[in-house]
Amino acid sequence: MQIVGSILAVSSSLNVGKAGPMVHTGACVAAIMGQGGSKKFGLTCKWLQVLKNDRDRRDLVTCGSAAGIAAAFRAPVGGVLFALEEMASWWRSALLWRAFFTTAVVAIVLRALIDVCLRGECGLFGKGGLIMYDVTSANISYHLRDVPAVLLLAVIGGLLGSIYNLLLNKVLQIYNIINKKGIAYRIILACLISVSTSCLLFGLPWIASCRLCPSDASEPCPTIGRSGNYKKFQCPPGYYNDLASLFFNTNDDAIKNLFSKGTDTEFHHSSMLIFFGTCFFLSTFSYGIVAPTGLFVPVIVTGAAYGRFVGMCVGSNLNLNHGLFAVLGSASLLGGSMRMTVSLCVIILELTDNLLLLPLIMLVLLISKTVADVFDANIYDIIMTLKGLPYLKPHAEPYMRQLTVGDVVTGPLQIFHGIEKVGNIVHVLRTTGHNGFPVVDEPPLSSSPLLYGLILRTHLVTLLRKKLFFKTPTPIGLDAFLQFSADDFTTKDLGLCDQLDDIELSEEEMEMFVDLHPFTNTSPYTVVETMSLAKALILFREVGLRHLLVIPKVSERLPVVGILTRHDFMPEHIQNLHPRLLRSRWRRYPTSCKESPTMAYVS
Amino acid sequence: MQIVGSILAVSSSLNVGKAGPMVHTGACVAAIMGQGGSKKFGLTCKWLQVLKNDRDRRDLVTCGSAAGIAAAFRAPVGGVLFALEEMASWWRSALLWRAFFTTAVVAIVLRALIDVCLRGECGLFGKGGLIMYDVTSANISYHLRDVPAVLLLAVIGGLLGSIYNLLLNKVLQIYNIINKKGIAYRIILACLISVSTSCLLFGLPWIASCRLCPSDASEPCPTIGRSGNYKKFQCPPGYYNDLASLFFNTNDDAIKNLFSKGTDTEFHHSSMLIFFGTCFFLSTFSYGIVAPTGLFVPVIVTGAAYGRFVGMCVGSNLNLNHGLFAVLGSASLLGGSMRMTVSLCVIILELTDNLLLLPLIMLVLLISKTVADVFDANIYDIIMTLKGLPYLKPHAEPYMRQLTVGDVVTGPLQIFHGIEKVGNIVHVLRTTGHNGFPVVDEPPLSSSPLLYGLILRTHLVTLLRKKLFFKTPTPIGLDAFLQFSADDFTTKDLGLCDQLDDIELSEEEMEMFVDLHPFTNTSPYTVVETMSLAKALILFREVGLRHLLVIPKVSERLPVVGILTRHDFMPEHIQNLHPRLLRSRWRRYPTSCKESPTMAYVS
Repeated sequence: MQIVGSILAVSSSLNVGKAGPMVHTGACVAAIMGQGGSKKFGLTCKWLQVLKNDRDRRDLVTCGSAAGIAAAFRAPVGGVLFALEEMASWWRSALLWRAFFTTAVVAIVLRALIDVCLRGECGLFGKGGLIMYDVTSANISYHLRDVPAVLLLAVIGGLLGSIYNLLLNKVLQIYNIINKKGIAYRIILACLISVSTSCLLFGLPWIASCRLCPSDASEPCPTIGRSGNYKKFQCPPGYYNDLASLFFNTNDDAIKNLFSKGTDTEFHHSSMLIFFGTCFFLSTFSYGIVAPTGLFVPVIVTGAAYGRFVGMCVGSNLNLNHGLFAVLGSASLLGGSMRMTVSLCVIILELTDNLLLLPLIMLVLLISKTVADVFDANIYDIIMTLKGLPYLKPHAEPYMRQLTVGDVVTGPLQIFHGIEKVGNIVHVLRTTGHNGFPVVDEPPLSSSPLLYGLILRTHLVTLLRKKLFFKTPTPIGLDAFLQFSADDFTTKDLGLCDQLDDIELSEEEMEMFVDLHPFTNTSPYTVVETMSLAKALILFREVGLRHLLVIPKVSERLPVVGILTRHDFMPEHIQNLHPRLLRSRWRRYPTSCKESPTMAYVS
Repeated sequence: MQIVGSILAVSSSLNVGKAGPMVHTGACVAAIMGQGGSKKFGLTCKWLQVLKNDRDRRDLVTCGSAAGIAAAFRAPVGGVLFALEEMASWWRSALLWRAFFTTAVVAIVLRALIDVCLRGECGLFGKGGLIMYDVTSANISYHLRDVPAVLLLAVIGGLLGSIYNLLLNKVLQIYNIINKKGIAYRIILACLISVSTSCLLFGLPWIASCRLCPSDASEPCPTIGRSGNYKKFQCPPGYYNDLASLFFNTNDDAIKNLFSKGTDTEFHHSSMLIFFGTCFFLSTFSYGIVAPTGLFVPVIVTGAAYGRFVGMCVGSNLNLNHGLFAVLGSASLLGGSMRMTVSLCVIILELTDNLLLLPLIMLVLLISKTVADVFDANIYDIIMTLKGLPYLKPHAEPYMRQLTVGDVVTGPLQIFHGIEKVGNIVHVLRTTGHNGFPVVDEPPLSSSPLLYGLILRTHLVTLLRKKLFFKTPTPIGLDAFLQFSADDFTTKDLGLCDQLDDIELSEEEMEMFVDLHPFTNTSPYTVVETMSLAKALILFREVGLRHLLVIPKVSERLPVVGILTRHDFMPEHIQNLHPRLLRSRWRRYPTSCKESPTMAYVS
């Protein structure tokens, strides 16, 4: 689905990227593997069953994304770093190793396929090597006097990046409203964007004047065929239209063209500016329509046009040629909109194979990210907030320091006893959507109410299905496990949550009892209710939890006060509970704020 | 100190690296900055005071290490990754950004200095660009039939790496015994190593026979001057000694020589094998003597010699030249001994500027790490275990699953009351070495004993110094803070722990009371005593704690059972407490064991 949609979207010359869909495809394949193959398509595989748990599934999705970037940009190391910097909310050293393994395999397979293709055995796809936009020149030299221009480029790039994010945010909000109205509106929207893109692409080159072909052109000028640097458009022989040369190529070819050296005179100032503006707006409007689209490549194209324009304006008395300015421009816009550092650096390095430019790229990324961080959040946070996904920020918001865990625990708490009536379990599972329940032992079993542990909904459903019930509340031994295979407790296919309805229980069975003890996680993570919310968030995020039990400060009737999930940490939820905070000065705070050096984190 | 020692050691042609000392120097500078400048050398700086807390100090040390690698290898991105993969026991996204900032500055300064040097303003140091061992060739091509040779190289490289670690472990154990005997023994040892190194370097070239100079040599042959590929040694004019050419160069030149293409016929099989063997043993024996030494460069040289030897043996019917085999050999030995993946990959990439070789380098690193992991731990773990540093492994050992937190809590627990007698505090601080103490409120202040929080030793010492005492046990308000500046509570200079003795307290003062409430961390992380040790370790490590309070399962007289520190999680400590575990099958387990997909981590 993704792949087909992406191919269609890219080939219809919409201003969209292919990296996003590739990452999504990689993640989807990984998620399907994480389910032990898709039952729907009959693709089950015995050895994949070992991967059927939460942690491995998350890891697989991260590795899948890494593989997607590695394949899209032929940048294996960049893929690993992208996955870690942007995708993984939970870092482990084993994850690094797995992601590296995945992308290494991708790199080797890619290299082998290139090997096959170079022998001419794959027709049209035979072009291109491991480096997509090769800008290697014998020896790039730049000196201190080139630095001010680069600094200027980086600062403006950062500003443009934050404007890009702002614009995309607004556009996506409008699209969200349209998309909610139904599938017909979505398709009309997609068609509208597509038609207006085409109109712009064919209309704008009329503005540009024809330019004389250079006498020392490396390829025939003007070119009329499939691809080339000098498009004829409507010009007389011997002339070319520079704007058409940019518009009528694929994004990849346009980037190659913009990055290449020795083409300093090929484009006119006004053409470059028009191209930049068109790309800037088209890429924001093209993202978020029904087709699967990416952001990476459009941002690179836009940035390259911007960088080249700056290079043209600064003049030719510098050592850096316009192609290098285009590379730096892409870096600045990427840094300004995506706000990654190391991974972008490596991806650009792997795209262009230009190690000597590394110090300048690092400088540009540093500055553009810093400038853009002043204004708004990074593009992935914006998109996730718009989609309403409960993504936990790595930092605790400042107002969380002033709240305790007890302040955000809500709702009626559903607990189970160590030995529970079947009817109760069914009722609670039917009436609530919680995925984890505390298990408490009460006086007949212990001297005072004791927190025994945490039981998961999926395990309860499995228990009900097995019907290991007793007439009287008797504890069962560990031999109960013999009736279950490990497979029964592995995470089931996503989207099959309503398995409860499949289980038929008689009236008699509903009155029976089941012993939950052997199936309970006896050491869940707990926090005391007076714990600061900020510190609880750190625990939740760093350890990668789904449920966090809150226990009372002083012994009360119940040994558990509540249960925290990801949703309880979301700013929206907290601000609903404590509207006072909304009005306070903490309301909007830059995401990269540095925590003050208090004692809060010293433990 | 470090720098001078390192320069002396490298220039005395010991087989040692410069990266280690550079990393250490970077970390030391960072640690001094973390103390707000060194008071000893009068280098205090006002704005550095904000960095005076634990977390920032750790971050600074990590960034310092990154800067060290970036400067030693001119590999800024590799430096960031090295610091994250190997040094940081605690990962945060802000740390990535800081490390990136540090190395970007290093890269830019380096580039600027190179710029200055290229104008010939720094004498002898003027050589070398941003890429240390440039092996770029117009187009490297390799095909599927080259892969078996590379696989063989990687497997043997992994084996050699684990043997290297084993040997280094034994050598360091012997050195530890010698070093304990006193400074005289240490110096004798260093001299012994130095003399025997010199003897080997001058003695071994006699074995090699003289070789005829090639007619198309790119530089004068034989060379007699400071540096060159063809050393004359004792050969007649027109001949050169290939072994001398390797031995009588600096490590850097030797690596350049081995990595370079077009020198396939320069060395003889036997010379290469002798050079490899000598490097292999000399580098293990040279590490760990008194001089500050590194491991990176010796391993690269040894690996390059090994790779080139394999390249020679495999024969010339492959597409890969011997220089590329040398690069892959270095990669395999680095992978086999240091066991890093992404960072090594990027460092090698930045050292050699050879992006096309990336798939092969990834393949080699994957295989050599996997092979070596079967046999022993990575070299940094070995060194840290030998030095007795309490370094927490990222993985919980399997036997920790079978223990609860309550099983490892030891010793008499020292607690303070919310309002405590000064005499008591002084007594406890004098008689114990703990750094954190639980604060408990007892009945006059609360209805039942309540855990109020955790107070740090340094804060207690500050309180005693300020002498904010009362005749009766009265609570003080928050205005107590007005008497303190934030500076009073910042972490003090390392090594000044005995500040307690400086405080003079009269008999009368010892009988007075102090209110600890305002100075206590009221939300320390806690675990219930029945929590599995493995899960507590994950919490401890992922959140980056120093103290973890253990609270009882059922309400007892005391609301706290004990306090866990880093030492309580060390395998040695646990095995002392539970010698039964020593005899069980869990005793020795490969470090990279994959945890079985139980429910233990799902929460």
